[in-house]
Amino acid sequence: MPEIDTDAFLRDLHELRTIGRFKTGVHRPTYSPQDMQARRWLMDRLESCGLEASIDGVGTVLGRHRGPGPHLLVGSHIESQNEAGWLDGALGVVAGVALARAGLPVDVCAFADEEGHFDVGFLGSRSAIGEVSEAEIDRARNRSDGTPLREALAQAGLAGLPRMRLDPARYRGFLEMHIEQGTQLERAGLHLGIVTGIVAIWQWRIVIEGQQDHAGGTTMAERRDAGLTAVRLLAAIDAAFPRVCGERSTWTTGRITLDPGAPSIIPGRAEVLFQFRDVSAEVLERMEAELRALIRESNRRERCPAVLVAVSRAVPALCDPALMRALSEAAEALCPGGWQAMPSGAGHDAQNMARVMPSAMLFVPSIGGISHHWAEDTHEADLALGVRVLGDAARRILAS
Amino acid sequence: MPEIDTDAFLRDLHELRTIGRFKTGVHRPTYSPQDMQARRWLMDRLESCGLEASIDGVGTVLGRHRGPGPHLLVGSHIESQNEAGWLDGALGVVAGVALARAGLPVDVCAFADEEGHFDVGFLGSRSAIGEVSEAEIDRARNRSDGTPLREALAQAGLAGLPRMRLDPARYRGFLEMHIEQGTQLERAGLHLGIVTGIVAIWQWRIVIEGQQDHAGGTTMAERRDAGLTAVRLLAAIDAAFPRVCGERSTWTTGRITLDPGAPSIIPGRAEVLFQFRDVSAEVLERMEAELRALIRESNRRERCPAVLVAVSRAVPALCDPALMRALSEAAEALCPGGWQAMPSGAGHDAQNMARVMPSAMLFVPSIGGISHHWAEDTHEADLALGVRVLGDAARRILAS
Repeated sequence: MPEIDTDAFLRDLHELRTIGRFKTGVHRPTYSPQDMQARRWLMDRLESCGLEASIDGVGTVLGRHRGPGPHLLVGSHIESQNEAGWLDGALGVVAGVALARAGLPVDVCAFADEEGHFDVGFLGSRSAIGEVSEAEIDRARNRSDGTPLREALAQAGLAGLPRMRLDPARYRGFLEMHIEQGTQLERAGLHLGIVTGIVAIWQWRIVIEGQQDHAGGTTMAERRDAGLTAVRLLAAIDAAFPRVCGERSTWTTGRITLDPGAPSIIPGRAEVLFQFRDVSAEVLERMEAELRALIRESNRRERCPAVLVAVSRAVPALCDPALMRALSEAAEALCPGGWQAMPSGAGHDAQNMARVMPSAMLFVPSIGGISHHWAEDTHEADLALGVRVLGDAARRILAS
Repeated sequence: MPEIDTDAFLRDLHELRTIGRFKTGVHRPTYSPQDMQARRWLMDRLESCGLEASIDGVGTVLGRHRGPGPHLLVGSHIESQNEAGWLDGALGVVAGVALARAGLPVDVCAFADEEGHFDVGFLGSRSAIGEVSEAEIDRARNRSDGTPLREALAQAGLAGLPRMRLDPARYRGFLEMHIEQGTQLERAGLHLGIVTGIVAIWQWRIVIEGQQDHAGGTTMAERRDAGLTAVRLLAAIDAAFPRVCGERSTWTTGRITLDPGAPSIIPGRAEVLFQFRDVSAEVLERMEAELRALIRESNRRERCPAVLVAVSRAVPALCDPALMRALSEAAEALCPGGWQAMPSGAGHDAQNMARVMPSAMLFVPSIGGISHHWAEDTHEADLALGVRVLGDAARRILAS
């Protein structure tokens, strides 16, 4: 079996980086002209590696190995967040190309819209396991500008194409290489992370209703300031969550919108985007119970009622022990002592693959932990080491 | 001296309400076509009452009494906040028209942009007392869409017109009738408020710098979450201000902007619009000292530094005792026991007039205290009583 050509792998990554370039990163929102150009680039590359390339009705690209099995599925996503990094997603796809180029019997996939520009959530990987209905697609819209998904698909030339449905029986499993998007590896001086599980994100909207009033004419005693209730509730969450969370739980307020948002008007409405993450369903449920208790307490004390709306409550995914073992053995062989097992704090397509086949993920370090920002980067030596470990692990899995 | 024609006064108010109508309120942002239509409507009305009407280089409309003095200046503003009420500003201008129609020797003014759509602040009334330089106009922009003030003036057909400069020696004083924009009168069952002073607004921007990161990959211990620092600081302000404020102080967070404002990204930057108000300079200074101490304390504890930027620090204005006495006597004559003295929590053009001539304000109740919202309203009986009291007070002042 030939070695992975890491030079070709890095060349591919840099070539893909020129499509939708933004500063040192890329701007390739799902179904944008740049994103579609990247998908076409990938299909060319897959064909040139001997795979049979196709694109489906939601834009997922699949390169199918033409020979006999057993097969592995390898990939990630190719669109980016807005004005974001060059490696998030692209790395896992181009790593799949590198394994195919080395002659390994892999199918390579780039699942559409892992980044969630549209409000479906993991559109490509969920569609590929049969979890997205046509009605869901009918309803879906772009989270930023409200464009209907159907309209975006038509403009991208994808309307009417069939949606790919993966056959789990074809695969020994799914492997996704990805940047860490954190600083655990860097701080520990390590080069590889073998992912034990992918946290579930429980995303909430907290809506608080007050009374919009003039900020001068309304005394403090008379006010029903929705923004102030939001601030007190968020401060209470910040104080209470450390007592109920798990060791690696995270919770984040991403947005606070005060309506109407003017300097001299008491906010009549506040809307908060709040989420927490953990690999343990038990911990997630404990956090939800605490959140609900804090909102009940807020509603008891405050004059502005708060309502909790569940936006999404995913199931945590655990990685497959045999695949993790293959990755660990490959890591130890190529970089002794330079790796660790760790959970993934971010969501990935692998969590959906894990529902239909054995799945595992390999992390490489993010410089400074930066991600979802154009400055995101990883040392080329780590990228090259990662793809070699991925290839070695694939061989071990296929040989087992 | 003839009586005030309250029917004509109410007819005028309702006619003006049709210009830029929005639900039961109006939408007349400064220099919009609707606003300019309202200014032309006012000029016609002033001429028909025998005044000499003019509009100046910032859109302030003045109706000048053609006869001998002594004179009073009566007015307010005619543009509205976005999608706001029909009486805020318009009431004081149309009340001036009613006094002129009754033959009182008054000049009537509608000062431009009291509502501050442009970032000058009280453009019309400050310009009329010689406080706005050409350079300030060159720099000014619309707070919502960034349109340069010069461009807006040109589009409104005002470019090149001279700016009106009031001659304080012409006037015994300035009277402004306005809705209360609070519920003090309504809750006390009263119909008139004689304003003792106008609070000063000290407006601040608090800018907090953190580190934008992925909400999954970055552990709680590693984060520099600018939004969380903002929440803790605002909760601390809310807890500390009651100990340093005055009896009628107010403080308001009108907007919290987390950047980039996405569900799964740790905010790298937070910007807060915060203001406080009081009639006492001493209290204002105490509140500023407390705010600065809280920010120092935040910067000592938190990993995201906060910077305080002063947007505006106005001087509180006290109303003229002789004018207040005339208003009180008129109120007691026409509505015995139905009035009270009270501060104005909102800023008004009268605070600028007070710097060059004796000034006073008369409040009528706001139903439910609602203001800066299209649902703003006042009972017609209170509107009619108010304009009669204003006319009677004007007579008393002119006769003194």
